[in-house]
Amino acid sequence: MSLNVLFAASPSRWSQYEAPLNEAFKAFGVKAVLGLDLPPEEVDYIVYAPQSGVTDFTPFTRTKAVLNLWAGVENIVTNDTLTQPLARMVDEGLTQGMVEWVTGHTLRHHLNTDLHVKGQDGIWRDDVPPLAGDRPVTILGLGALGQACGKALVDLGFPVTGWSRTQKDVAGIACMSGKEGLERALATARIVILLLPHTSETENTLDAQAIARLPQGAVVINPGRGPLIDDDALLAALDSGHLDHATLDVFRTEPLPPEHAFWAHPKVTVTPHKASETRPCSAARVIAENIRRGEAGEPFLHLVDRSLGY
Amino acid sequence: MSLNVLFAASPSRWSQYEAPLNEAFKAFGVKAVLGLDLPPEEVDYIVYAPQSGVTDFTPFTRTKAVLNLWAGVENIVTNDTLTQPLARMVDEGLTQGMVEWVTGHTLRHHLNTDLHVKGQDGIWRDDVPPLAGDRPVTILGLGALGQACGKALVDLGFPVTGWSRTQKDVAGIACMSGKEGLERALATARIVILLLPHTSETENTLDAQAIARLPQGAVVINPGRGPLIDDDALLAALDSGHLDHATLDVFRTEPLPPEHAFWAHPKVTVTPHKASETRPCSAARVIAENIRRGEAGEPFLHLVDRSLGY
Repeated sequence: MSLNVLFAASPSRWSQYEAPLNEAFKAFGVKAVLGLDLPPEEVDYIVYAPQSGVTDFTPFTRTKAVLNLWAGVENIVTNDTLTQPLARMVDEGLTQGMVEWVTGHTLRHHLNTDLHVKGQDGIWRDDVPPLAGDRPVTILGLGALGQACGKALVDLGFPVTGWSRTQKDVAGIACMSGKEGLERALATARIVILLLPHTSETENTLDAQAIARLPQGAVVINPGRGPLIDDDALLAALDSGHLDHATLDVFRTEPLPPEHAFWAHPKVTVTPHKASETRPCSAARVIAENIRRGEAGEPFLHLVDRSLGY
Repeated sequence: MSLNVLFAASPSRWSQYEAPLNEAFKAFGVKAVLGLDLPPEEVDYIVYAPQSGVTDFTPFTRTKAVLNLWAGVENIVTNDTLTQPLARMVDEGLTQGMVEWVTGHTLRHHLNTDLHVKGQDGIWRDDVPPLAGDRPVTILGLGALGQACGKALVDLGFPVTGWSRTQKDVAGIACMSGKEGLERALATARIVILLLPHTSETENTLDAQAIARLPQGAVVINPGRGPLIDDDALLAALDSGHLDHATLDVFRTEPLPPEHAFWAHPKVTVTPHKASETRPCSAARVIAENIRRGEAGEPFLHLVDRSLGY
């Protein structure tokens, strides 16, 4: 008997995901009918993205799991009608893209390439920057993305400190946790990278007080989630000269409205939530594997702890 | 008995190198007097940079080796008065700096960060670039610098092809050599990085014909030496749209004159020969080790083959 898998995402995703999902089902031995419109009571699994329009999970009486297409689950985790297991996406394509974006922007600030990209004015500015070994980087968040980015930066010679809610142990990274650990992790950071999930606990992690702990001239890079930063505190610290620059990929409102102060600020670089994106081919394999696990009675990968929010 | 070591470089280098060299001599058990002004016939070793003013090596009758401060030796290798052994600098600080610069600018072009650095205009341009795995990079030159840069790019997921005069075998890099190998190495390169030494053989390696072999839209990155590229052919290929961009750190004349076409060209980024620089502390240790070797009768490190020119 074949399973029914509802594709609950914005219709524009259907053309990207239909073929990769059916191919991955085949590769993982999952016999399933994938559809955009299936009777809720006949749905076995839901492939989910927030733009789907599905907000009430009550009618999905036989659904065994909701498989999120993206890494972030803040738009669904607080939905009280969701009683089914919820899995996040941990996609190697998404991880790889994030490593590339984070490494690229870290080196951009480390080397100060903007000086040359913007200043092709005939002036030979040949001061050589310090080596990576003299540019400590702190990563807030040591999940799959934070660890992968930390490893890439360690390989390039940066001293990397990592902070997470619970204490972790990651080779090459000075791992810290808790409130006092956050203060120490911020105090040494020439570049701070935000890769925390968005939960009620992490909201405004970088508030005025945390920003004040960063050394003079530090740079903030946020490919995580917009609400991790207190925007007004960030702008104040950039204006006062305490912070040197902020490169932001995520925002409280997306797309970032054209009139937002971040766009025109000379010390802010806005990138349009492109640090990384789930890649259909690799993501489809994660979803197929989770359905295979569900049917085999094995534990789901990347299951969300609803009480923690991620 | 103590050795006499002449520091033959521009006087501004003396303050940078005096302390690190004396410290390194001590660490390597080299008993030496380091000086800016020593009688030529009493000099045992010369620490050399082209700006030193020393052009006639004939009077240095007992000098056992000339130890170049920089990686490039094109300004001294053709000097007929030089009969003493000549060693190039292979400095781990220089290598590390080069890896950072090359990786940073490769990722800059791969991610097209310039689009955002220059275009903070309120327009949400959220096309996601391909992953590094779909962006083949070719490195011309597989010496210490080329190999180190290749390794860093392989670690980040780029498919890397390397080309060198003689066939090499480097883990993770598709190594090619010879004229036909160069043609193949260029044909697949979305990004081509020049790290060849400057010799009569390598002059204009990237001429009109070689540039024509690069795929439409390729990017050229040159942290090697200015004369490796035919400047007019490069400008023509940028203007015709065959090449997408060139990021150049080295030039036939340095500093690059303010009126040079490269400065104002919208598809050229000039950086002021800052891709990497010898770092006094690590370079001093290489020099001390070579003097120790000379005194112990051991072969010098990084000896230049005068017939090859590097």
